[in-house]
Amino acid sequence: MQPRLSLVTLGVADVALSRAFYGRLGFVESSAGNENVAFFQAGGVVLALFGQQALAEDAGIAFAAPGYRGVTLAHNVATREQVAEVLAEAERAGARIVKPAQDVFWGGHSGYFADPDGHLWEVAWNPFFPLDAGGRVLLP
Amino acid sequence: MQPRLSLVTLGVADVALSRAFYGRLGFVESSAGNENVAFFQAGGVVLALFGQQALAEDAGIAFAAPGYRGVTLAHNVATREQVAEVLAEAERAGARIVKPAQDVFWGGHSGYFADPDGHLWEVAWNPFFPLDAGGRVLLP
Repeated sequence: MQPRLSLVTLGVADVALSRAFYGRLGFVESSAGNENVAFFQAGGVVLALFGQQALAEDAGIAFAAPGYRGVTLAHNVATREQVAEVLAEAERAGARIVKPAQDVFWGGHSGYFADPDGHLWEVAWNPFFPLDAGGRVLLP
Repeated sequence: MQPRLSLVTLGVADVALSRAFYGRLGFVESSAGNENVAFFQAGGVVLALFGQQALAEDAGIAFAAPGYRGVTLAHNVATREQVAEVLAEAERAGARIVKPAQDVFWGGHSGYFADPDGHLWEVAWNPFFPLDAGGRVLLP
């Protein structure tokens, strides 16, 4: 696994309200978003906003589960195959696999692991978000 | 406020255990850490690990408070004065000020605001972590 945090997604109660708030703060939204999700280039990382229930469901976790934090860290990879490879590496490092690598509704391929404290990492291949030479996500 | 996420700090139960886990994942620790905190360059952002009780206390929040997430996003600024300025901007944008700008024990100056869902942002001036031309934190 390359040592890289690609995106931070915050679960929010109201995407429209939160995207307006971050817009007022000075964050500039990418055209990649839609009514359900907002993406902002936030320096060397992407900040995303997504409905809090949907964010939990994406990891296969109940929103009301004890200890659920409503935040997902993402590590984006360059190829579909690397998703399963990185998840296997994480498991060898002691991570708990939360969701095995699989195709996802938005057209990518991803899986989830949890660190020792339950912080959730998504490992994702997103064909719509290319990576630059340094492995950083380039938003459209 | 420049649209920038500088650091993501994860609250952890055991810093030694978690720093070893992230090391096995491939993250390379900066010399800036100590037994209580670990910093890793994670592409264009810094990933930090800090004791979960201490992380809550730093924001002036009880660790057991309902909705406390155990994650802090940080926006680092280039001067001490900018901390209060950015907090004031955030308040005008609709943020709740959680902790006003103040000197902090590690030698910097910082304050906290919460977004509409209670996601915590620290606005920090850290004289030990210079920013590059693009505003990114350069770890020692």
